Amino acid sequence: MTRKLRMGMIGGGKDAFIGAIHRIAANMDGLIELVAGALSIHNETAIESGKMLFLDPERTYLDFKTMLEKEAAMPADKRLDFVTIVTPNFAHFEPAMMALDKGFNVVIEKPITFSLEEAKKLKEKVEATGLTLLLTHTYTGYPMVKQARQMVKDGALGKIRKVWVEYPQGWLSKMSEREGNAQAAWRTDPSKSGKSGCMGDIGTHAANLAEYITGSNITQLCADLNIMVPGRALDDDGNVLLRFDNGAAGVLMASQVAAGEENALKIRVYGEKGGLEWAQQEPNTLLVKWLDKPTEIYRAGNGYGFQSSYMTANTRTPGGHPEGYLEAFGNLYRNFARTLSAKIDGVTPSPESLDFPSVAEGVRGMAFIDNVVRSAQSDVKWTNFEI
Amino acid sequence: MTRKLRMGMIGGGKDAFIGAIHRIAANMDGLIELVAGALSIHNETAIESGKMLFLDPERTYLDFKTMLEKEAAMPADKRLDFVTIVTPNFAHFEPAMMALDKGFNVVIEKPITFSLEEAKKLKEKVEATGLTLLLTHTYTGYPMVKQARQMVKDGALGKIRKVWVEYPQGWLSKMSEREGNAQAAWRTDPSKSGKSGCMGDIGTHAANLAEYITGSNITQLCADLNIMVPGRALDDDGNVLLRFDNGAAGVLMASQVAAGEENALKIRVYGEKGGLEWAQQEPNTLLVKWLDKPTEIYRAGNGYGFQSSYMTANTRTPGGHPEGYLEAFGNLYRNFARTLSAKIDGVTPSPESLDFPSVAEGVRGMAFIDNVVRSAQSDVKWTNFEI
Amino acid sequence: MTRKLRMGMIGGGKDAFIGAIHRIAANMDGLIELVAGALSIHNETAIESGKMLFLDPERTYLDFKTMLEKEAAMPADKRLDFVTIVTPNFAHFEPAMMALDKGFNVVIEKPITFSLEEAKKLKEKVEATGLTLLLTHTYTGYPMVKQARQMVKDGALGKIRKVWVEYPQGWLSKMSEREGNAQAAWRTDPSKSGKSGCMGDIGTHAANLAEYITGSNITQLCADLNIMVPGRALDDDGNVLLRFDNGAAGVLMASQVAAGEENALKIRVYGEKGGLEWAQQEPNTLLVKWLDKPTEIYRAGNGYGFQSSYMTANTRTPGGHPEGYLEAFGNLYRNFARTLSAKIDGVTPSPESLDFPSVAEGVRGMAFIDNVVRSAQSDVKWTNFEI
Amino acid sequence: MTRKLRMGMIGGGKDAFIGAIHRIAANMDGLIELVAGALSIHNETAIESGKMLFLDPERTYLDFKTMLEKEAAMPADKRLDFVTIVTPNFAHFEPAMMALDKGFNVVIEKPITFSLEEAKKLKEKVEATGLTLLLTHTYTGYPMVKQARQMVKDGALGKIRKVWVEYPQGWLSKMSEREGNAQAAWRTDPSKSGKSGCMGDIGTHAANLAEYITGSNITQLCADLNIMVPGRALDDDGNVLLRFDNGAAGVLMASQVAAGEENALKIRVYGEKGGLEWAQQEPNTLLVKWLDKPTEIYRAGNGYGFQSSYMTANTRTPGGHPEGYLEAFGNLYRNFARTLSAKIDGVTPSPESLDFPSVAEGVRGMAFIDNVVRSAQSDVKWTNFEI
Repeated sequence: MTRKLRMGMIGGGKDAFIGAIHRIAANMDGLIELVAGALSIHNETAIESGKMLFLDPERTYLDFKTMLEKEAAMPADKRLDFVTIVTPNFAHFEPAMMALDKGFNVVIEKPITFSLEEAKKLKEKVEATGLTLLLTHTYTGYPMVKQARQMVKDGALGKIRKVWVEYPQGWLSKMSEREGNAQAAWRTDPSKSGKSGCMGDIGTHAANLAEYITGSNITQLCADLNIMVPGRALDDDGNVLLRFDNGAAGVLMASQVAAGEENALKIRVYGEKGGLEWAQQEPNTLLVKWLDKPTEIYRAGNGYGFQSSYMTANTRTPGGHPEGYLEAFGNLYRNFARTLSAKIDGVTPSPESLDFPSVAEGVRGMAFIDNVVRSAQSDVKWTNFEI
Repeated sequence: MTRKLRMGMIGGGKDAFIGAIHRIAANMDGLIELVAGALSIHNETAIESGKMLFLDPERTYLDFKTMLEKEAAMPADKRLDFVTIVTPNFAHFEPAMMALDKGFNVVIEKPITFSLEEAKKLKEKVEATGLTLLLTHTYTGYPMVKQARQMVKDGALGKIRKVWVEYPQGWLSKMSEREGNAQAAWRTDPSKSGKSGCMGDIGTHAANLAEYITGSNITQLCADLNIMVPGRALDDDGNVLLRFDNGAAGVLMASQVAAGEENALKIRVYGEKGGLEWAQQEPNTLLVKWLDKPTEIYRAGNGYGFQSSYMTANTRTPGGHPEGYLEAFGNLYRNFARTLSAKIDGVTPSPESLDFPSVAEGVRGMAFIDNVVRSAQSDVKWTNFEI
Repeated sequence: MTRKLRMGMIGGGKDAFIGAIHRIAANMDGLIELVAGALSIHNETAIESGKMLFLDPERTYLDFKTMLEKEAAMPADKRLDFVTIVTPNFAHFEPAMMALDKGFNVVIEKPITFSLEEAKKLKEKVEATGLTLLLTHTYTGYPMVKQARQMVKDGALGKIRKVWVEYPQGWLSKMSEREGNAQAAWRTDPSKSGKSGCMGDIGTHAANLAEYITGSNITQLCADLNIMVPGRALDDDGNVLLRFDNGAAGVLMASQVAAGEENALKIRVYGEKGGLEWAQQEPNTLLVKWLDKPTEIYRAGNGYGFQSSYMTANTRTPGGHPEGYLEAFGNLYRNFARTLSAKIDGVTPSPESLDFPSVAEGVRGMAFIDNVVRSAQSDVKWTNFEI
Repeated sequence: MTRKLRMGMIGGGKDAFIGAIHRIAANMDGLIELVAGALSIHNETAIESGKMLFLDPERTYLDFKTMLEKEAAMPADKRLDFVTIVTPNFAHFEPAMMALDKGFNVVIEKPITFSLEEAKKLKEKVEATGLTLLLTHTYTGYPMVKQARQMVKDGALGKIRKVWVEYPQGWLSKMSEREGNAQAAWRTDPSKSGKSGCMGDIGTHAANLAEYITGSNITQLCADLNIMVPGRALDDDGNVLLRFDNGAAGVLMASQVAAGEENALKIRVYGEKGGLEWAQQEPNTLLVKWLDKPTEIYRAGNGYGFQSSYMTANTRTPGGHPEGYLEAFGNLYRNFARTLSAKIDGVTPSPESLDFPSVAEGVRGMAFIDNVVRSAQSDVKWTNFEI
């Protein structure tokens, strides 16, 4: 890379959770600088947030349209390279489409859009413009997830037979949306979140992780969605039987009413020769289980000489210096930045840099939501995964 | 108790796995002595096994019918108090019925019979004779399982919403039944094992554990059973969505092809206020998760003063002295022995002594197998749990 | 073995902790039967305890001398094979000496005697009589401890450099000996326990474990003993620097005031090529760490084909069926019983059967106490380990 | 803060481990920008590193003296706010003194200097100039370490009795310093590293952590230092008995030859009422053990309402989103930056911002090295901790 990339942000004003995360992820490696923002639909918040982020007041905008127009008109050595969209789900599509139309690359928080239709259109737009889009399915940014994917790809486990992925959280165990929790309020509101709550918010992460590690696609599913807190408008819990295109059977369990759980995403994959187990809350460890020898503890950053280059390229420290959620997030940004810079510099990005989720994953995620909801409403056991 | 109880054993000759386990469990507390056996259908094995167990040659029988007849004719101070049946599934019913007819109490390895019909008949027989039957669903003998059950019963977690129970094993990942593994051979043979393999062998344990801890019954299920090793005759893997009579939703996952897993039975239960997590391979710990305070680590044998009397009554050592599978098994025998002795002595057994699985659990287990297999063959999502 | 061995017990009446443990350990495998006892110095307790254990009233004795005399006079087919001594430390020596003089083999709870002098005399007596003595250093009975010892012996770790052994308990964090805790009372009383409290009770276990696994002897030590609860008469805490005869350096930490700990004995051993970690509270796992490859999780009962025969001979169940403290204790008894039976039967016991602690370990344990106390009182850094 | 702070770096060119870590830590929160550097004593490396970091070529210096002089001459709105010194130990003192003389605040990697004398002089200089110095004892930046410190301070555990701190690494198990490992080479070279290897490099971290959490100072110690790899010039292993000014006894164990260990710093502290356990490799968990109730699992970022404000101020994400080593490092920088900005802005920094290690910790660290080496060479058991 020959220079830092210039980032603008849509949404993510002070008090927003995920905007702050995106900024840390983007800052971490010194490859990106935040130079502009339309940080809030509330003018005061937007201005105050811009100050807190040391933005030039002239590039602190009150709405995203103004930002995209003004930035598009700037000279090439000042103009934004990309915009990050961290608004609630319903407000992803419009700014993303406009940004692409104006020639900006895009980072977008998942789920990619409000509906499958929007996702498909956005995919077409990305393909038509040739621009680059990063969808922040954070969990695939962890080094040991990449190690797991590589081991499956290399056939270390033999043919994959089983996938168990689970994502328990407990934070919606009460009717928090009526107790002033803003996060809870929009995430449980169909008009802002979409047709699914729990499955849209975290079930999609679990599905994406399962498909990423196994390199296989879900082809059929059988869903049981629940509203465990009476009066809530969207599912807060669900269990889904899965079938994959490689013949594996699976289960996806997601819940926001697993009282006492934090963010306990975990996946287990079993093949003919062995299994893998990875848990997000202790992400630097990958348990590698074998049919005929002792379980091994693979550790991020450890130099055994036989790891995936995708693992090492996404690690910053030697073994024993735990990296976490922010570094996984940072990996998405770093790979995106390297890919974008390669394009700018006219060179070919490394395969490791190209390894980040984008519109294809976005469309599959929206389709997952659609199919799960359809299955949950059906009396037939298996629903085909349709896009 | 005023004397040791006298046990006879049907099956369980040398080289049998589960027979040896039953003997250790029965021996452990010095309340029972093995005095007779029809230990094998092979005469030499029967005789040799009797010698190894220091049995009186006159009470080393070559078939169970002879044993039951001769023992029934013995004087009261010498006659067996009960017989333990540890033959393969298909050979449970006949000796159990005959033993009850002859007036012997019965211990029987699970699943209780070969078919649901047999199970119902056996239940009727037990009720008609007034005799006592222990079904060795081992895992409910663990002290922390009893602690968990009590906490649910006491409402510590509030209304139960979710149950996840899983039982991964890896030992059938290959076609071991054709490589001289006798255990594998009969367990994968429908004529010996019954209409399900994995679900009959370990799925029933998982279902029993879930019902025991929650104090609720499964009312509906949706099963996906698989044969992962091509050529095998019975399911070696399965995932089942569950609904319980208290409104909880659940998932039961069992597999014998989870390569690299040993015997990793684990259950998680979540209610409005918190959750419980217990894993058989580290059985002395019960994780108690709370919505509003830190997770607590409850430990077997620890004297905090607020545990269930059912936990303490099933523990032999202070905290930090790990008890395991054999002690859990021993708890079943000890509670059974105390109940039986109380009957013999004409006193009322304690509630803690009466807490062991019997014919009701046996019938539900056989019904679980039937219903799961029926669901797996159906295109309709939900199958009602019928007995 | 051609018959069960006959055991008598000295001490261990109802309410005694360790006597009950010995009985379970002896019962477990059906190789031993308890037939006589001098179970308490209180006559009523002795008689009541005998009844609870279903002893013949004629073999329920009121004092050990009578028991040993009467039993010695019995015919060979009825006479005790061995006596188990489970009295407090100060009351080990006299019955042990008399038992040996009368021709009985002996099982004795650790520490072997009240003083080093007694231990040496007892060793001479055992050697003179040719009888067999088992000292119940329980922790060396665990299968994964035996696996660890074998790996060190086989050089799997290369030359051993470091040993860290720790034994934290919290049960004496308060002045419990004045609050009616009988266990606490005698263990903190120099006239009953000996010249050390914590180091005598649990430090000796830690030292024994370290020497057993490494196959090396402590040659020098530097001790810091503490009385953390003011007013207590004996050390309740201590840290000891160690040097071993193979050049390794070590640390032994033991405490009975580590509030919140149960019985958390743990050892780590490091050599040139790797390290081992074993913790008593999760005893079925041995972590095997390597310099150049991932840490491996060795599991008791798992059939990888390269384990120590000493591990497999001391395991009763397949991997995933946790065995615990009572089974480790049972292993001591089982190996002792097999050795004794081999002698009775005139055959050579297997090396695995001969692997149990005896008088040599007893003498070293008493010497450890002496040397640690001497070092603690010295201003010189290193104290030679003298016997 | 009203603007980003401007950082210059001395040392830390490409291929240096710790320089890259400092940059990530400084970048992470968007409060600091790297604008100048004297990144290497090799001119080409310095220039190339400057390019990789997108530095203005005019502020890419070839030696630190030039940098400090030129930067001191710059106008206030461009001049560096502070310099970070990440050279090997022997090259800390001179640039630090000069930076302070020129009016720059300083961040310095530990150990603070090459000798205790230098450390004392540096402390005097800091005090004389009134400038701010951050010493990067990273591990005290972890939120759960701060939680632990607060709990001790609040008396939650009662009087502290025991401290066990350990720091095993395995990376020097072989003679790596002669196999081209540059890190190993200077760290085992007395002329570059100082009078201790293992104790200087990681023992100081362990001692600092123990004093930070307990709020107590080491007053006496008894050290056993070892050179386990023959031919090495400095200690690669050591065990130290400790006494603290509050009466607690402790042990500090550090090793670089614990083969198979990564960076396994761990501390346990026990008081009258309970204990704490924290391990750097799973840093988001603090085990809180209690004498009379179950162990609790405190988790970083979890909103129970009773945590230390020092914990929450040093956490960026909600519970279940693991933060790690880089965030802990970032906490040091963030607190330093907030303190510095407060000074610049003329406001009072919050107590939480002021909580970072500085010259006092630096002097104690150097004194720890001196005292440990002196004790190791002495035949007397206890050595007083002198400064």
